[in-house]
Amino acid sequence: MGGDNAPEMVIEGIEIARNLHPDARFILFGDENRIAPYLARFRRLGDVCEVRHTDHAIAADEKPSQALRRGKKSSMRLAIEAVFEGTAGGVVSAGNTGALMAMSKFVLRTQPSIDRPAMISFFPTRRGRCAVLDLGANVECSADNLVQFAVMGAAFARIELGIDRPTVGLLNVGVEELKGNDTVRTAGQALREVDFGFEFAGFIEGNDICEGTVDVVVTDGFTGNVVLKALEGGSSMFVSFMRQAFQSGLASKIGYLLVKPAFQQMRKKIDPRAYNGAVFVGLNGISVKSHGGTDGAGYANAIGVAVDLVRGRFSERIQADLEKSYVIPPESVEDTPRAAIS
Amino acid sequence: MGGDNAPEMVIEGIEIARNLHPDARFILFGDENRIAPYLARFRRLGDVCEVRHTDHAIAADEKPSQALRRGKKSSMRLAIEAVFEGTAGGVVSAGNTGALMAMSKFVLRTQPSIDRPAMISFFPTRRGRCAVLDLGANVECSADNLVQFAVMGAAFARIELGIDRPTVGLLNVGVEELKGNDTVRTAGQALREVDFGFEFAGFIEGNDICEGTVDVVVTDGFTGNVVLKALEGGSSMFVSFMRQAFQSGLASKIGYLLVKPAFQQMRKKIDPRAYNGAVFVGLNGISVKSHGGTDGAGYANAIGVAVDLVRGRFSERIQADLEKSYVIPPESVEDTPRAAIS
Repeated sequence: MGGDNAPEMVIEGIEIARNLHPDARFILFGDENRIAPYLARFRRLGDVCEVRHTDHAIAADEKPSQALRRGKKSSMRLAIEAVFEGTAGGVVSAGNTGALMAMSKFVLRTQPSIDRPAMISFFPTRRGRCAVLDLGANVECSADNLVQFAVMGAAFARIELGIDRPTVGLLNVGVEELKGNDTVRTAGQALREVDFGFEFAGFIEGNDICEGTVDVVVTDGFTGNVVLKALEGGSSMFVSFMRQAFQSGLASKIGYLLVKPAFQQMRKKIDPRAYNGAVFVGLNGISVKSHGGTDGAGYANAIGVAVDLVRGRFSERIQADLEKSYVIPPESVEDTPRAAIS
Repeated sequence: MGGDNAPEMVIEGIEIARNLHPDARFILFGDENRIAPYLARFRRLGDVCEVRHTDHAIAADEKPSQALRRGKKSSMRLAIEAVFEGTAGGVVSAGNTGALMAMSKFVLRTQPSIDRPAMISFFPTRRGRCAVLDLGANVECSADNLVQFAVMGAAFARIELGIDRPTVGLLNVGVEELKGNDTVRTAGQALREVDFGFEFAGFIEGNDICEGTVDVVVTDGFTGNVVLKALEGGSSMFVSFMRQAFQSGLASKIGYLLVKPAFQQMRKKIDPRAYNGAVFVGLNGISVKSHGGTDGAGYANAIGVAVDLVRGRFSERIQADLEKSYVIPPESVEDTPRAAIS
């Protein structure tokens, strides 16, 4: 029921995803009366979909705490509970981000070796794409949090990009070991010392994101959120300047007709729909946030991310990576009950 | 002597600036033998330039501490000392950024009402330009620092943009008052409560930078540095994708010839040379950093920024704004010896 154009956009997305992932099955939580007409549009969609009716949906402006308290019968909550119960492998929602994060965390719980779940998503780069986390789940992060983000990001890249040993960089204001604040320096040291099954590329700078220097960019949720939105704003400014240029005078307009196919090819590389599907990582289950303003093709991408992570046994792999590498020194067990970097 | 193509690029920049600012005079610190041939190229340049010879120049890879210790006779140091002595109104350098910051701070000293100097520069936006600070001088910032950055940024915008009451936004992960960490929330509260002579627009998000929502964007030096470089990287990715699109096939190539004039017009809007000249604000004097890889036109812009700030009596205006607005409550004088937000 979430998103600007739900449930139509969601069902169009499922129809696209059904063709890409023929063995996937879908449970749709929401208002049956509103879902049925759209479902009926696609002949074979009924075979892979099951509708579970509920009248209640979380509003776009509802606070996470309200959603937690009052949304126990909401479509979002029931969908997350299906993951908790094992009926579903993962949940995908285009609804209220804060509510999805709060309810996913409350129902699915943080996985044992992780202190703080984080939000991850792909960014376009010159060379393809890179995963960036945390995109805003944690405005303040410890060095331990950053190390765990690196492990989760690498597991994500391994499954989504199919790279066995992804490269991981820690976002900083310079590449030298002494640069930055205590938190990034301590995290950098831990990542240099322990082999977590990925290539630690050391500190990277802001420009490295779009240059595609690494497969995974690790940062705190404040910086990650600001950078994500800054790049979105920059990209949209650029596209609007381009549009103005193409419309300024007859020669430009004719020129545009000739350039158009190549230009559309290029826009595909930065099409937000191709990057749709931010994942709330570090939980006992898969929870994927679709952009609310996307279309069917974008929603299908978010579903694809969830399908890949369920198939790739994402949470279990994070757990295994951390258990392999983390050593809990006996004398510090009390200070850091869950995990400590040796 | 600083920059990839000095002193040639610098002298070309002075020649351009001389025409734009006919009453400006220039003192060139550096190797007379290397400067003279370039100076001789421009007939009337000798009238407004004076060369002060020194053999020593700070290397691009020199650490700030080394530069401070060993660079006492360097061209950079002597240029900054000319500002301290009042011989020059401001210094412009395309050399080592860390050394320029360290030496400027050491020689010119932080101005009385400011705790931490910061780096400010303009970014392109849909509506024109906005000034962003801190771009990396302080990786960790207190709420007081952010408030002072806002005052300095507003003074900068007043002079450079000619706006009497500029709008100032505080970069955060959301616009609601409760969003973000303690530091931005406390700074936000102070900026809402005290009238510092600008319009406080409250919290803004990453996308607001390029959307041109405000004239001045305030953030800590970690976030600011990462965002600056991320936008540079994003912009360069975009331009490279465009270039690929225009070169893919005959139709695109012909189309490009027709679009070219409009496209170049558009590229001017994001031309880094037009934004050249980052200012180290909060000192008793003007210190401007030019990009090392710029050309004469870019260097002339950096000179223009310095000329404007000297004419606008930048440091004095910051001092006046802060003295007008800051109240030091007697009981908290010991905790915060320099300034406290009432």
